Amino acid sequence: MADTLSVDDTHARSGDLRDAFLRVRSATEKLIGDCSPEDCQIQSMPDASPAKWHLAHTTWFWETFLLNEQEQVPYQVFDPDFNFLFNSYYEAVGPRHSRPNRGMITRPSLARVLEYRRYVSDHVMQLIDDGLTEAQNDLLKLGLAHEEQHQELLLTDLKHALWQNPLSPSLMKQTNVNAMPHVEQSWVQLPEGPVSVGCDGNAFQFDNEGPAHKVYLNGGQMSSALVTEKDVADFIADGGYSTASLWLSDGWARIQLEGRTAPLYWTGRETEMMVFTLAGLMPTDDHRPAAHLDFYEANAIAEWKGARLPTEAEWEAFAKSGAAEDGNASEIEAVPSTHAPFRSVWQWSRSDYAPYPGYKAPRGAVGEYNGKFMVNQYVLRGSSCFTAPRHSRVAYRNFFPAHAQWQVSGVRLARDA
Amino acid sequence: MADTLSVDDTHARSGDLRDAFLRVRSATEKLIGDCSPEDCQIQSMPDASPAKWHLAHTTWFWETFLLNEQEQVPYQVFDPDFNFLFNSYYEAVGPRHSRPNRGMITRPSLARVLEYRRYVSDHVMQLIDDGLTEAQNDLLKLGLAHEEQHQELLLTDLKHALWQNPLSPSLMKQTNVNAMPHVEQSWVQLPEGPVSVGCDGNAFQFDNEGPAHKVYLNGGQMSSALVTEKDVADFIADGGYSTASLWLSDGWARIQLEGRTAPLYWTGRETEMMVFTLAGLMPTDDHRPAAHLDFYEANAIAEWKGARLPTEAEWEAFAKSGAAEDGNASEIEAVPSTHAPFRSVWQWSRSDYAPYPGYKAPRGAVGEYNGKFMVNQYVLRGSSCFTAPRHSRVAYRNFFPAHAQWQVSGVRLARDA
Amino acid sequence: MADTLSVDDTHARSGDLRDAFLRVRSATEKLIGDCSPEDCQIQSMPDASPAKWHLAHTTWFWETFLLNEQEQVPYQVFDPDFNFLFNSYYEAVGPRHSRPNRGMITRPSLARVLEYRRYVSDHVMQLIDDGLTEAQNDLLKLGLAHEEQHQELLLTDLKHALWQNPLSPSLMKQTNVNAMPHVEQSWVQLPEGPVSVGCDGNAFQFDNEGPAHKVYLNGGQMSSALVTEKDVADFIADGGYSTASLWLSDGWARIQLEGRTAPLYWTGRETEMMVFTLAGLMPTDDHRPAAHLDFYEANAIAEWKGARLPTEAEWEAFAKSGAAEDGNASEIEAVPSTHAPFRSVWQWSRSDYAPYPGYKAPRGAVGEYNGKFMVNQYVLRGSSCFTAPRHSRVAYRNFFPAHAQWQVSGVRLARDA
Amino acid sequence: MADTLSVDDTHARSGDLRDAFLRVRSATEKLIGDCSPEDCQIQSMPDASPAKWHLAHTTWFWETFLLNEQEQVPYQVFDPDFNFLFNSYYEAVGPRHSRPNRGMITRPSLARVLEYRRYVSDHVMQLIDDGLTEAQNDLLKLGLAHEEQHQELLLTDLKHALWQNPLSPSLMKQTNVNAMPHVEQSWVQLPEGPVSVGCDGNAFQFDNEGPAHKVYLNGGQMSSALVTEKDVADFIADGGYSTASLWLSDGWARIQLEGRTAPLYWTGRETEMMVFTLAGLMPTDDHRPAAHLDFYEANAIAEWKGARLPTEAEWEAFAKSGAAEDGNASEIEAVPSTHAPFRSVWQWSRSDYAPYPGYKAPRGAVGEYNGKFMVNQYVLRGSSCFTAPRHSRVAYRNFFPAHAQWQVSGVRLARDA
Repeated sequence: MADTLSVDDTHARSGDLRDAFLRVRSATEKLIGDCSPEDCQIQSMPDASPAKWHLAHTTWFWETFLLNEQEQVPYQVFDPDFNFLFNSYYEAVGPRHSRPNRGMITRPSLARVLEYRRYVSDHVMQLIDDGLTEAQNDLLKLGLAHEEQHQELLLTDLKHALWQNPLSPSLMKQTNVNAMPHVEQSWVQLPEGPVSVGCDGNAFQFDNEGPAHKVYLNGGQMSSALVTEKDVADFIADGGYSTASLWLSDGWARIQLEGRTAPLYWTGRETEMMVFTLAGLMPTDDHRPAAHLDFYEANAIAEWKGARLPTEAEWEAFAKSGAAEDGNASEIEAVPSTHAPFRSVWQWSRSDYAPYPGYKAPRGAVGEYNGKFMVNQYVLRGSSCFTAPRHSRVAYRNFFPAHAQWQVSGVRLARDA
Repeated sequence: MADTLSVDDTHARSGDLRDAFLRVRSATEKLIGDCSPEDCQIQSMPDASPAKWHLAHTTWFWETFLLNEQEQVPYQVFDPDFNFLFNSYYEAVGPRHSRPNRGMITRPSLARVLEYRRYVSDHVMQLIDDGLTEAQNDLLKLGLAHEEQHQELLLTDLKHALWQNPLSPSLMKQTNVNAMPHVEQSWVQLPEGPVSVGCDGNAFQFDNEGPAHKVYLNGGQMSSALVTEKDVADFIADGGYSTASLWLSDGWARIQLEGRTAPLYWTGRETEMMVFTLAGLMPTDDHRPAAHLDFYEANAIAEWKGARLPTEAEWEAFAKSGAAEDGNASEIEAVPSTHAPFRSVWQWSRSDYAPYPGYKAPRGAVGEYNGKFMVNQYVLRGSSCFTAPRHSRVAYRNFFPAHAQWQVSGVRLARDA
Repeated sequence: MADTLSVDDTHARSGDLRDAFLRVRSATEKLIGDCSPEDCQIQSMPDASPAKWHLAHTTWFWETFLLNEQEQVPYQVFDPDFNFLFNSYYEAVGPRHSRPNRGMITRPSLARVLEYRRYVSDHVMQLIDDGLTEAQNDLLKLGLAHEEQHQELLLTDLKHALWQNPLSPSLMKQTNVNAMPHVEQSWVQLPEGPVSVGCDGNAFQFDNEGPAHKVYLNGGQMSSALVTEKDVADFIADGGYSTASLWLSDGWARIQLEGRTAPLYWTGRETEMMVFTLAGLMPTDDHRPAAHLDFYEANAIAEWKGARLPTEAEWEAFAKSGAAEDGNASEIEAVPSTHAPFRSVWQWSRSDYAPYPGYKAPRGAVGEYNGKFMVNQYVLRGSSCFTAPRHSRVAYRNFFPAHAQWQVSGVRLARDA
Repeated sequence: MADTLSVDDTHARSGDLRDAFLRVRSATEKLIGDCSPEDCQIQSMPDASPAKWHLAHTTWFWETFLLNEQEQVPYQVFDPDFNFLFNSYYEAVGPRHSRPNRGMITRPSLARVLEYRRYVSDHVMQLIDDGLTEAQNDLLKLGLAHEEQHQELLLTDLKHALWQNPLSPSLMKQTNVNAMPHVEQSWVQLPEGPVSVGCDGNAFQFDNEGPAHKVYLNGGQMSSALVTEKDVADFIADGGYSTASLWLSDGWARIQLEGRTAPLYWTGRETEMMVFTLAGLMPTDDHRPAAHLDFYEANAIAEWKGARLPTEAEWEAFAKSGAAEDGNASEIEAVPSTHAPFRSVWQWSRSDYAPYPGYKAPRGAVGEYNGKFMVNQYVLRGSSCFTAPRHSRVAYRNFFPAHAQWQVSGVRLARDA
């Protein structure tokens, strides 16, 4: 059951935060195993960041919010310039390097950033060994979740960076890209009446996941299966990208302007489409969940199917119903591999990213984590094949603007009864 | 009670659609009474349209959807080129002139467009006299509502056009800009539990106002008064435009980029601010509802007040509670004149513009009226001093992007109990 | 001979500056005879200005540089706001309305601007009758030349404005668009050695036409005929717009970006091209000089012809050689009508617009007339069918950026012997 | 005397093209000695290219124009994809990677590009040893000059890339930044009458340097000294950046838009300005020639000095007069070090980059080297402290758009007698 997937459950059990910290930090570094310093340097668009920046920023987070704020362990900042370079968006922590120019920072080098990681990790370990206060314990959990989020972003950004190269290089030596099994699609009925949404449990959660509150469901049905690459290929073949009536107005304007005729990372002619993955180009697979759809594409495909996108509340009710199984993927994979709500593709909801009733952003810099982004974005639920193991839960709210294509974003359809 | 304000109630009673048609058509023309052909020509930004275009487009609507589709009365299109020039966004009706270039169409002239209006009006009158089918009756009501919507847009667009002129010319000879009375502010408690939202009654409504459905309210309170120009002046004086923590991230980026330090149409130094109105520049008024706030400003002011924006459902529950009085404005006015929910300023909700559960856009061109715009916009409720008399109702959903400043958009605060 | 065409020769002879003033002022107003206030309002691109603006700006010039600076005749400015609205680019005269927003100024109306014209003209007439100082006499001549320049700009800007309208309206009721006579093409040999270029005579000239100085000609030949619409049609048919090797790099990038496949104002399929003129769309004419070529097109066509563009000095030597006849056009015409150097199409030179040796811009605001624009522009020589009668001379230097298409710009080829 | 500085003189003497080839190739690689793969990866603006790209493109040039076109030595292209990736702008050689995205190519890595260099260099050496045809001999000389040009670009691009970093890192460990000696300024009189410009000698030259032809000089004087950092500091202190009358119109618009108040690479307050160099930030030096001025700044400073920029012909006459000494710099240096015409700063001329009389671009791909860029650029003469040793000559025409700031571009003033 999805509720049991919480990061926290794993991390906190039997005091093994120390192990969790080591595992998460080392997992981040493992992600760039095959990458050159050049691969880690570039920024392919303003929305993306260099891999090197992710490596440094996650480290800056520990340094700024944990090490600089404690007095148990002697700590000297690794390099005072790094606060300016690697602060992402925390106004309260002071000025920072302009986001679209992150790819221009060649110094410090990748090697120096890896040193920075070791230095900060060592000090955090010391602090853990020394014993954490409760507040520090909470920050540690937040820091782990933060770094796990950046693990996924690092991968989506690297994928987008490599895609700029006309040679379509591959990041991973993929071993297990098997043909996907067919999953029978069925419609799961949702209740009518108030359901509880969100959480304010004892386990770790981001502030945006609470408070728990009631939402009235007006009935509706959820699909047991995800939209597949076959569905997308059929949509293309049926003229989906040239049929205005299927599209939201903003989406139609956007694909017209770009001349878009297929999702991001699709290439080739209609009859033999290839899809770019972390393992390079590979043929489409009829049963593989479609990924890298933006909200407009998701909505148009739903329209074309005579269905619609679910609301957040519908998705959450569905996921809690037991119909959902976690994907069996135990490691980061190059492609979406199952139809399960988790560890395959994020699923666009029809809900904009807004505060839950009673939501209050925490005071201080950490309060900037979520609240200020609650505008002009749509919520995605589930998790993806790029999501860190153990970083999935039913109440998790991922969010991106409607035009975002470079995330591992797919569709689970809903419909009115 | 607001429910009785419906256009339809008035129009439909005792077969007087004929009078309603005459009244609405003539009201539109009256709006440009003091304007020169030049005033009616220009387009001050891509989001706005020339007054002449509004005059023509509303006429095209009658011609295209009513006259061209009937066989009762002999009808020949006034000018075949006008279908291309004055179609707004109906893909199903064929190609159309590019929106940002509407201001480039100097021919037909204003005089010729007024002829077009008379020609079409005469034929619609004939058709009414001849007897309408039920479908035509529905279209007539839609056409009236459509033209009333454009009356407000015509005014907001004209205001924005005149604002481009450094001489700050006035459109109206304003007679009744009295000092506003003070209204005592209080908090109105909302219920906790499911409430009904939206309508599917017998009276006229836009498709986006239904189906009626249940929404669960989690409690909360609504302010009896609107945010005033005094509140905005205090916000400015308190450094509101330079305090990042009050702003949503997108809003902060926007005002930084623009160097914005006050709402649109505000000018002058802090101590003696002037506000541009349809009657020219006038001093701020402590009790006048603030207008022309964008969603970001609305949200920042709410944050600064320790409050928040209401959801659509909260606003509707409040408006139905009887606490709301219609404004006493009987004509279009140059400035917001009361604190009532209606006929003063539109009120931003925290809800994005999304389909209600069970919503289906109608088939055909008319189906493009609302549904395809349900993305990246926020809902405003109420109506404004620019809204046509009788064009207000509790379930009405106005919608604009978060950055829209040129509408008569203000704020009614909500808070958690 | 072209030297005798000088504005000044005519204006100054026998003290008839009074007549010249009346004639020029009235000619300007005559140009908009058939235009609506709407036609005169719009600005089709930042490089163009509304016709109304030209009418006002030329009047502002008289008011600012002549009437405000004299004490012979009592003068009160017509409207103090107009100095801000109708100053074009004179930094020394103070701040001014932003150029790309000229089309946003609906007030004053066209009617009011025509009043302004009468008011200022009356006062200038008074001043002339009162007797001018020598400096005022010089300013009067400059003002006439200035207004004549704006007559041509007014026409090119109006043409471009009407072109925005998909209905291709016509400005003039054209009467004399006859088929053009064929002109036999020949090559005229130029001398080798120093020639004199530019003038500093007693007749009126713009400052940029002097000082007279020597330029060394390295031999070369000039074509007796202009490039025709037939030449352009052949260039198109021969794949000129898709042959990179014919184009300067900037030009190639530009036409690729735009997808340009023909000159501005050309429309239709290859076999039956139409050209937009002030008299509406008309078929191409094999013998009509091609107009509205930008510098890149001019250069590419020359390259394709195995020729090149002439330098300024070559053009001037050619024009002085007597091979050049003035066009016989006595009024503004809708289309280029002869192959003569003057009154047909401006002819691109290969020379950038730079100061002649010894050039010094005059002191004061009038010094901004020419000097500060001497960068990133190319010189055109001759005059066009839109040029005011008597506003042509051999030494005249017109100038536009290489990408300018909306002027009446054509080509006279040169080649090395 | 400058005429003896020709690349060719050195290279060709005693058949030592082999040595020249080795020296030039190894010099290129030496330039990035202290750089990380990251430093060599990024592209700081569309006009610049990554250092890695320069290393690869110069190699592609040898492969494409020399190795692929010969049959003496067996040759297989190193990697067929490289033709697409590393072609700069040769339309005749086929499609190529988009210029502004050069910084996105992380693979091949720097290491792989250095392998490519060795592979190609080895084969060129084989070919040289095997004996070159005359045409190949010419191509070899062109290839050497081409690679020397890119050496300077590599440095200017690297400097600009490092400047993006707020930490102002240094590229070189500078050893010899001594205070500059004062040079007494005097005015050198130029003759009046025809002088010979350009060359068509036996030594190597770019096609744009010929044919030799006559230009008529109208007299004038050239300054013996270059404009210094002291001059620029005085210009700034005298309000030069806020005095419209000193500026060409395009330049004024540009600095207003940017809010520019000092040249590129200048930073700090007026009284203690620092200048960014390849050796990091250093204080201004009163006697150091000012660099990184764009054409607009050069022209404004000349105007402020009561002088002007020289024409190409003036500069060349001056340089041939013997007044000019080569700088004594024997290696690439971090800063301009003398006032000599060569090896200090490039000197803007007032002449646009246009073909000399009789110029014909060669047939084929190599014909794209210069001719197609002859528009919208201004000529710079001399050479700079970044120019490769032996890559200077009197007739050399460097060229950049008026707004280019990142080249080592300075000013030598001229004036009318």
